Amino acid sequence: MVPLEFVAKLARPNTTKILLVVMDGLGGIPGGPKGLTALDEAKTPNLDGIAPRATLGSIDLVSPGITPGSGPGHFGLFGYDPVKYLIGRGVLSAAGLGLEMQAGDIAARINFCTVDANGVVTDRRAGRIPTEACTKLCEKLNAGLNIPGVTVTVKPEREHRAAALFRGPGLDPGIGDTDPQQEGKKPLEPRCTADTPAGHKTEGLIRDFVAQAARILASEKPANMILLRGFDAPPHLPVFPEIFKLKAAAIAVYPMYRGLARLVGMEVIPVEGERNADEVTALERIWKDYDFVYLHVKKTDSYGEDGNRDAKIHVIEEVDSLVPRLMALKPDVLLVTGDHSTPAALKGHSWHPSPLLLLASTGRPDGHPRFTELNCVRGGIGRIAAVDMMPLALAHALRLDKFGA
Amino acid sequence: MVPLEFVAKLARPNTTKILLVVMDGLGGIPGGPKGLTALDEAKTPNLDGIAPRATLGSIDLVSPGITPGSGPGHFGLFGYDPVKYLIGRGVLSAAGLGLEMQAGDIAARINFCTVDANGVVTDRRAGRIPTEACTKLCEKLNAGLNIPGVTVTVKPEREHRAAALFRGPGLDPGIGDTDPQQEGKKPLEPRCTADTPAGHKTEGLIRDFVAQAARILASEKPANMILLRGFDAPPHLPVFPEIFKLKAAAIAVYPMYRGLARLVGMEVIPVEGERNADEVTALERIWKDYDFVYLHVKKTDSYGEDGNRDAKIHVIEEVDSLVPRLMALKPDVLLVTGDHSTPAALKGHSWHPSPLLLLASTGRPDGHPRFTELNCVRGGIGRIAAVDMMPLALAHALRLDKFGA
Repeated sequence: MVPLEFVAKLARPNTTKILLVVMDGLGGIPGGPKGLTALDEAKTPNLDGIAPRATLGSIDLVSPGITPGSGPGHFGLFGYDPVKYLIGRGVLSAAGLGLEMQAGDIAARINFCTVDANGVVTDRRAGRIPTEACTKLCEKLNAGLNIPGVTVTVKPEREHRAAALFRGPGLDPGIGDTDPQQEGKKPLEPRCTADTPAGHKTEGLIRDFVAQAARILASEKPANMILLRGFDAPPHLPVFPEIFKLKAAAIAVYPMYRGLARLVGMEVIPVEGERNADEVTALERIWKDYDFVYLHVKKTDSYGEDGNRDAKIHVIEEVDSLVPRLMALKPDVLLVTGDHSTPAALKGHSWHPSPLLLLASTGRPDGHPRFTELNCVRGGIGRIAAVDMMPLALAHALRLDKFGA
Repeated sequence: MVPLEFVAKLARPNTTKILLVVMDGLGGIPGGPKGLTALDEAKTPNLDGIAPRATLGSIDLVSPGITPGSGPGHFGLFGYDPVKYLIGRGVLSAAGLGLEMQAGDIAARINFCTVDANGVVTDRRAGRIPTEACTKLCEKLNAGLNIPGVTVTVKPEREHRAAALFRGPGLDPGIGDTDPQQEGKKPLEPRCTADTPAGHKTEGLIRDFVAQAARILASEKPANMILLRGFDAPPHLPVFPEIFKLKAAAIAVYPMYRGLARLVGMEVIPVEGERNADEVTALERIWKDYDFVYLHVKKTDSYGEDGNRDAKIHVIEEVDSLVPRLMALKPDVLLVTGDHSTPAALKGHSWHPSPLLLLASTGRPDGHPRFTELNCVRGGIGRIAAVDMMPLALAHALRLDKFGA
């Protein structure tokens, strides 16, 4: 791994184009009667068709053994060391919802939850209320909240999730979570980590915010309370298009991933519809205007988290069926990978390396007949850190100068 | 990767001997009717003969995706992190020509070029004038230059290339290149990067140097001007024989590589003749006197840069034919690799990892039947950073103590 600034010095413009296809949570562990991972069992004739001309490998999104959240996973893919560029969940959520943060703002992730008469949390997700109900609760909060000296904006995400953005002078993002992380406990009091005037001031107003929200929501069912976590301020990130000299676009249906792309400075492309095919239609529309496009497929992860291995296989097969449309765009470099593994057997993100396929005319193919996890393990790229993928992609796109004489 | 100081603490003397054979630009990408890399197509019965007893692998000279120049590539092989130990082209050229630099000296690389009546560069290499012509121009410059307070030495390299060494009080190496990097432009003015008395003083005298050189060369054809780049001061490098506790020698026909070896403190061995066989003859002569010998083969890279795949294959086969003479010396550790890849299809250095063969009686052979790039990808060493190769070689030579109790 070399620092971003090092890559930035070598990056140079070119006319070549890079397409990064991220199947969220692609990797897995063996399961099913044949003892295969979802990718290895999926029928993927189109990906297999390009595999012999491609180079395969495995990427560690953070480091061996470390299970990444979506934020660190994507930061690794985008070439940012996820350990160095650490961003709070609140900022990720706000960015994903299009809440533009300014210097001095702080943001937190909200879960609507259910508390009993004693204030004890009985359901941390309030039965996963529908998004429409969440939207109404957010409107109610925005109308009823009144925190002197601070503007608060609450915006719904999906189901029970929302984000809150706080704008005002002298705010400190160092505030602990109020989410107790388990049911049967009361929400935690918000606590500042820094014993400073700004810390105590911010603690006080978040306390006020929580108290007001509790009153405003008291008569609601089942979502009669909020839990806060991931307070953070907007990060000062190197800008992806400037670092890599790439006009970059993101195509993603889910807000979180649009937010991640926006945080690093990619342009977020509107998608009509929510299907993977709709994303590819958007890609076809804008392909000529960009040097780099990141295309995100969510459902591989969702079904993995549900433990639904068959549905995960089905999504992979659906994406494979779209590969001819991707290939018709003739990307100079095609990358297919995931932002972490999500084995259905584990029903959650995992630390297993993500399989990677790299196709480029400047490649050194390793001759594997199929894009499988087993072949990726033996692939020509070997096992590398995800942050090394962007320099590799730039190199294959002939967009990096030689280092030193 | 561990720091050099860490390795230095563990390194201990022994009677074992290490031979490092560097085929410059060895790695490639598939080409030719069989779709093979130059190494994979070359008939290498001798290297293949030892492959089953060896361990294969791939090395990143700098980091995945980064294309190294010869300097960083060799620094990686010698165990020095090329990102940390960055050295200007001027110092590399000077070192390669045997211009011994002292503290306070600065050096730059010279290209003789052609400019038109308006001073616009029409040929950055002056038609690649013969080395003899370059030598005469350097003599003319040395005789005619007169920069008060500074001794300037200009020394010819090959063809249009030369180096200039400046010696005098208060010099600052932070001077920008005058090479505009493309034809149709005037040479750039030399500019100091530091707004200091030493910076401005040095800028002024380099400006004077360029103006005098222009006058001295005005009547020459085609080389009537100079371009300068890579200003730098001599580096303070850890000394290879001290760090690794190895009496070390370098055998290389090309000045640049002798210079690189000299910079890290290896002894440079004279070679009679310019053929690879002549280098091996020199090796046989001095083998008994050294613990470590670096032997450099240039032409694999030269032909790669020319896009002449067949000639590159031929050089690899020629080196293979010399392997029995290397084996007859019974090195305890034999390393065969490159300082970067130079695919003929790309006509230049590339970022592709370099194949590596390590033979030692202490090795864990991986049983591959041939020394090919495809086998190296699947080799027992895996894909490692080049800076890890020297500790590995020392270990196999039983020259590293255990770390910790």
